[in-house]
Amino acid sequence: MQFSLKPIGHVAADASHEELRHRTAVSKIVIDHKYARGLKDLEGFSHLYVLFLLHKAPKGKGNLMVHPRGRADLEMRGVFATRSPHRPNPIALTLVKLLSRRGRVLTVKGLDAYDGTPVLDLKPYDRHDSTPRPRVPLWWKKLELESKRARRS
Amino acid sequence: MQFSLKPIGHVAADASHEELRHRTAVSKIVIDHKYARGLKDLEGFSHLYVLFLLHKAPKGKGNLMVHPRGRADLEMRGVFATRSPHRPNPIALTLVKLLSRRGRVLTVKGLDAYDGTPVLDLKPYDRHDSTPRPRVPLWWKKLELESKRARRS
Repeated sequence: MQFSLKPIGHVAADASHEELRHRTAVSKIVIDHKYARGLKDLEGFSHLYVLFLLHKAPKGKGNLMVHPRGRADLEMRGVFATRSPHRPNPIALTLVKLLSRRGRVLTVKGLDAYDGTPVLDLKPYDRHDSTPRPRVPLWWKKLELESKRARRS
Repeated sequence: MQFSLKPIGHVAADASHEELRHRTAVSKIVIDHKYARGLKDLEGFSHLYVLFLLHKAPKGKGNLMVHPRGRADLEMRGVFATRSPHRPNPIALTLVKLLSRRGRVLTVKGLDAYDGTPVLDLKPYDRHDSTPRPRVPLWWKKLELESKRARRS
């Protein structure tokens, strides 16, 4: 059983690796002419999910155990307990803030996707997608703290 | 440019259509033996994203304008401003509460997927996925209110 995917557009980003990683980048999403009509009414939402293809993840490298954030010094974790790009189905998901739409070009904040990344879907975000205090494990909290410190320095 | 997807497991649910729709159902996700190792450490998270295939959405019906919730009495909207199953790439995304994991079987609450649905990915949910007061358009609020009333009656 196999299913195929078709990109609906791509990311246009000139932010640095650090800005993308820290979700501070402002990027554009350019939707193909063919799919542009599907964007109607999107501007009513403040936040969107962007599903995009992890097209730079090496093919066939659908690892089941990964080092979080690619850091070989950290204990390996089950891939479904991480957001690693090396997953059986190379699809990433990021919540972004929709700053504006002009025709088939969206300007968004917080997208951690490189320039040229194929976009698969956009979905509106509503209160069902939000949960106030999600529990995460200690090893995840430590990673978060480290990346917060890196952002400050 | 085409990419293919492989299911990593499936949904086992005996809830009613209404329970699934209202996100009150408790369901199981059974991960294939082949991918089971990737579940390690997942139980540290209270909430997960489940990406699943909308395998019952008619093929080739990648509509760009849809009636919200399939209701022909409502104005058509751009598909990317809805969570309609009839989208160019038939991938759904739902936030669920992880109640437990026993080996390769997860018990989750809030999954709006039918019994037998192929699962594509699981991702841990953290604070980056949460935004307190997302703005949604008026037509969306009205739909929400109606469905809340339907739940009560």
